[in-house]
Amino acid sequence: MLLFRNLTQLDLTGPHEVLSRLPGARVHLVAASREPAVSESGLAIVPTATFDDVRAADVLFVPGGYGQVAATNDAATLGWLRGTPARWITSACTGALLLGAAGLLRGYRAATHWAFMDLLPLVGAIPTEQRVVIDRDRITGGGVTAGIDIALAIAAAACGSDVAAGIALQLEYDPAPAYAGHPRSAPPELVGKQRAQMAARHAERRALLERLAGESR
Amino acid sequence: MLLFRNLTQLDLTGPHEVLSRLPGARVHLVAASREPAVSESGLAIVPTATFDDVRAADVLFVPGGYGQVAATNDAATLGWLRGTPARWITSACTGALLLGAAGLLRGYRAATHWAFMDLLPLVGAIPTEQRVVIDRDRITGGGVTAGIDIALAIAAAACGSDVAAGIALQLEYDPAPAYAGHPRSAPPELVGKQRAQMAARHAERRALLERLAGESR
Repeated sequence: MLLFRNLTQLDLTGPHEVLSRLPGARVHLVAASREPAVSESGLAIVPTATFDDVRAADVLFVPGGYGQVAATNDAATLGWLRGTPARWITSACTGALLLGAAGLLRGYRAATHWAFMDLLPLVGAIPTEQRVVIDRDRITGGGVTAGIDIALAIAAAACGSDVAAGIALQLEYDPAPAYAGHPRSAPPELVGKQRAQMAARHAERRALLERLAGESR
Repeated sequence: MLLFRNLTQLDLTGPHEVLSRLPGARVHLVAASREPAVSESGLAIVPTATFDDVRAADVLFVPGGYGQVAATNDAATLGWLRGTPARWITSACTGALLLGAAGLLRGYRAATHWAFMDLLPLVGAIPTEQRVVIDRDRITGGGVTAGIDIALAIAAAACGSDVAAGIALQLEYDPAPAYAGHPRSAPPELVGKQRAQMAARHAERRALLERLAGESR
């Protein structure tokens, strides 16, 4: 699991809670250095490994959050993602844009946070409106809390659905959402307000991915 | 938010992602020392404050996990919980047993992880089979992933339902569970297997809470 500054911690911690429960799992939080990575919300997580320590994995997982922009601008991070073979290449939230910037979603169906779905074609991915998108060995999905659904899909792919079902019970994954969490069903004015709040980040991400697309041409 | 060794990190990190998004929120992760607290699953979180630093709060939140047993045996932790006045006293998962051991759920309706609901009467609480239980200023709920629903209820109580609804959209809280996450709907043989796996912990928690109940008589 890739760890970086200013990640959205729940993108990572939800999947970590699931994946660490797989039989025989050894989960590493991999970062450029051993410094604690402070999330956007101020939660500091200690890496367990650096890029040099991990050269292959069964599951490669990338979280999102505002730090995804800086991580996408970081050659060491892109190099590690490209150079670490894995059986499953996965992300939650805007982690898909980082995977995509590393060239790992070209020609794959994929999803990301609802507010950034329109940016997926900039990395050659095919936007697919699903909570979890499985295309061959790529497993991506929606924003933040989707990480839990994504990780259960990874668990099922890696260890079978009985194992995934057992973990869902352990985690009492029986959600009772009191509010609409997707623009599909939320009040349009609330969606508009959230989009407006994210407009600057959307523009920044678009500009970055357009620049990278231009460079790789 | 109380932080301790061997917590179930998602009990805390789910609510942290929600509560840190409240307007003007200042979220502290409070522990006995500034040492990183390593979760059951090996995720190390850095505290932002010690018991002496935080003497009151708007929201007091307690996570669960196996470390709840050691925390319940720790006089400093119980003392801090009892001595920190808060507008809302809240927990996720087996955090309710710790709140209860501190005497803070006596006479209140409450919930905890499904496998430990039967222990709530040992701390004087009234087991209530709901994902989120609000009784006056106490807000508790089910296991692990219930923390997100609990935190959205805290958000609504503290800042209104519009704020909570905005956060649900930001977090794309539009869950699509692929498996039954509660014994109510899960295959009985899978529930039995999970109960068997948790039997030793159940017995340990029962013995501890019975001893404390005896001492306080």
